Amino acid sequence: MISLEEKFYKLGVKNAPGQEEKSNRNIDNKNLLVDFSHGDVDAFKPIPKSLEKFIEGFHMGEKQAYTEYKGKEAIRSYISQKISCFTNTQINADKNIIVSPGTQGALFLAMGSTISRGDKVAIVEPDYFANRKIAEFFEANIIPIDLEYYSTTTNAGVNLNQLEQAFKNGVKLFLFSNPNNPTGIIYSSVEIKAIAKLAQKYNVTIIVDQLYSRQVFDEREYTHLCAQQEIDPENIISIMGPSKTESLSGYRLGIAFGSSKIINRMEKLQAIVSLRASGYNQAVLNLWFSEPEGWLEERIIEHQLIRDDLVSKFKEYDDLFNIRSTEAGSYLFPQITMLNTTIHDFVDKLRIQENIIVTPGTEFGKQFKNSFRLNFSQDHQSAVNAIERLIELAKEHSK
Amino acid sequence: MISLEEKFYKLGVKNAPGQEEKSNRNIDNKNLLVDFSHGDVDAFKPIPKSLEKFIEGFHMGEKQAYTEYKGKEAIRSYISQKISCFTNTQINADKNIIVSPGTQGALFLAMGSTISRGDKVAIVEPDYFANRKIAEFFEANIIPIDLEYYSTTTNAGVNLNQLEQAFKNGVKLFLFSNPNNPTGIIYSSVEIKAIAKLAQKYNVTIIVDQLYSRQVFDEREYTHLCAQQEIDPENIISIMGPSKTESLSGYRLGIAFGSSKIINRMEKLQAIVSLRASGYNQAVLNLWFSEPEGWLEERIIEHQLIRDDLVSKFKEYDDLFNIRSTEAGSYLFPQITMLNTTIHDFVDKLRIQENIIVTPGTEFGKQFKNSFRLNFSQDHQSAVNAIERLIELAKEHSK
Repeated sequence: MISLEEKFYKLGVKNAPGQEEKSNRNIDNKNLLVDFSHGDVDAFKPIPKSLEKFIEGFHMGEKQAYTEYKGKEAIRSYISQKISCFTNTQINADKNIIVSPGTQGALFLAMGSTISRGDKVAIVEPDYFANRKIAEFFEANIIPIDLEYYSTTTNAGVNLNQLEQAFKNGVKLFLFSNPNNPTGIIYSSVEIKAIAKLAQKYNVTIIVDQLYSRQVFDEREYTHLCAQQEIDPENIISIMGPSKTESLSGYRLGIAFGSSKIINRMEKLQAIVSLRASGYNQAVLNLWFSEPEGWLEERIIEHQLIRDDLVSKFKEYDDLFNIRSTEAGSYLFPQITMLNTTIHDFVDKLRIQENIIVTPGTEFGKQFKNSFRLNFSQDHQSAVNAIERLIELAKEHSK
Repeated sequence: MISLEEKFYKLGVKNAPGQEEKSNRNIDNKNLLVDFSHGDVDAFKPIPKSLEKFIEGFHMGEKQAYTEYKGKEAIRSYISQKISCFTNTQINADKNIIVSPGTQGALFLAMGSTISRGDKVAIVEPDYFANRKIAEFFEANIIPIDLEYYSTTTNAGVNLNQLEQAFKNGVKLFLFSNPNNPTGIIYSSVEIKAIAKLAQKYNVTIIVDQLYSRQVFDEREYTHLCAQQEIDPENIISIMGPSKTESLSGYRLGIAFGSSKIINRMEKLQAIVSLRASGYNQAVLNLWFSEPEGWLEERIIEHQLIRDDLVSKFKEYDDLFNIRSTEAGSYLFPQITMLNTTIHDFVDKLRIQENIIVTPGTEFGKQFKNSFRLNFSQDHQSAVNAIERLIELAKEHSK
């Protein structure tokens, strides 16, 4: 039996987003701080009128402060309708959806409701670091699935043979983000359909984190797993939230939708984990998917332009970096091909010498020893300047 | 091994506060709804200027949206100082405190950071229902400790012999609320010192939920476990929050303070459970313990007056009810001495016929078959009227 000591030893938070800048920073550094560990809500502001919606919620008093654990009924109805439209599915507001404190909350509840100790859980590598940490907390047996994101430009590169083999060997749950965090790539329609078929064939439950699915670049096709006929909808939980593209992270709001059985468990679990997403904050969800006309499109274009500039900077030095361009979301996951030190040392120097914060690749899988993640939802010019400094440092630390 | 099915079967939420009114209510009932399952934040409003503090937080943008997982440094400093004063202890803002999404969040993190599967955990009965549910979720072996609250008026009535026997038999964690939820009684200084000594002697960790410790009636003495010399402070986690007396429940804010080792684990756990308490909401904590002069005293007196009226109503019918008067907080836990039906039936009839919501005693321990909990933080006159109707119904359902 794993001891609590071991369990918590593995649960490090030092390099998690929002934590880095607090540790080990040189406060005398004269460079402007650019924190690529998460998006900058000052550069990309929350959906207009979010504060006004919160204030309305506050003034509703009692009725808004004490909602059902799974979220206020009227808000669940509204969101269900919007997400049904967005994903081309039918979400029943009573049975198929829960509002949670952020998508992190939704992910924890979904995994806590589906993982028994010792269960085989397939997790893509690289993928969001909390996936592995939560699975370890629930004492799952993690089966890594490779995402060969440099091997293709038309697919995400998920290794479907490995996945089928894992499913054959008794995997109960498969967990992945689409768009992928940290690479920013999208799973192709062919991949999503293959995943759906395999899950159905081997009776595997799927949790798919679609946090960045509204921020798709170059008018690419995005395929919702939950809309696939090949798989029983009771075997899927999808997760979304307005913390990224919509910059509502300060309100801590997320949703999970899908399987009524799992949603029901998640509500029970939420009752002991946190009761509910903050009542007044829930009111802000009424803006989600009702942004002012053109607002989302403009936000996407602005991010696409930052991506273009950063990617072209990295591509100027293709002897130093491997990079695959972001297809959706705000992440880039460059690899320093000939790094002559550890990624942690590189990341520390970047922070201390250049006042730039990035997330080391090893957070996404121990094999990503030469990679780092950038969230480029930043002030455009500051991001470009920071990348120029980063490239200089990478030159100094390449063989 | 306990299956997920069993685990979630036990995790019912139907009778939990905030849930009852949504299920099985007669919406045509002409009586005014009085929901005693939780306090009414319309009758007792949030600390003045809470919305203004939230708005300030929102306008701080990035810095307030993305705080450290354990809470924004400046806010932890402020609260540490206030709580150090209140409890007469020394809380280090870096090591000994964490801000969480509500006290429910703090409780879940504290238990998740201290319970290994199969550990013996001593839990008072009656006590807050989530204590047992969380312990079951982490697969603890629950050892009940009787609170003989009708046997005394000078103590809480915790059975210290049982407690010592349980500690001797290998209990790792002892968990209790003070003031007690649901009875509203306070542990005496003698009891707290005895608990401290026993915990030290047998090396037991203690989690003490002090949610209602600011709302003490009749100028009674309140003893903070964390201030006792008899016990190593590294063996204690105390939990507080501004959701009750201060009516800030809609913001979902709580804190835990004490053992640096456990706080450190709690931060790691929070990183995968919910990241942090909503950033903007954290700003509201700056009002806690800085309420306008006289505000807290007035709030206490108003609650004391409601308590007096309700208790005297029940005491008029001492053939029908056993009741011990609230010493702190807003709960009463009356027993219907000769109930001729089940408490669930009584509670259902109360809801459907009278539009009154109370929490059945069985939520606090299966032996409390004739008891129910009231949160009397309600409009004074509505509460009195509702109790008159409740007494009539109890008459009809007594032998």
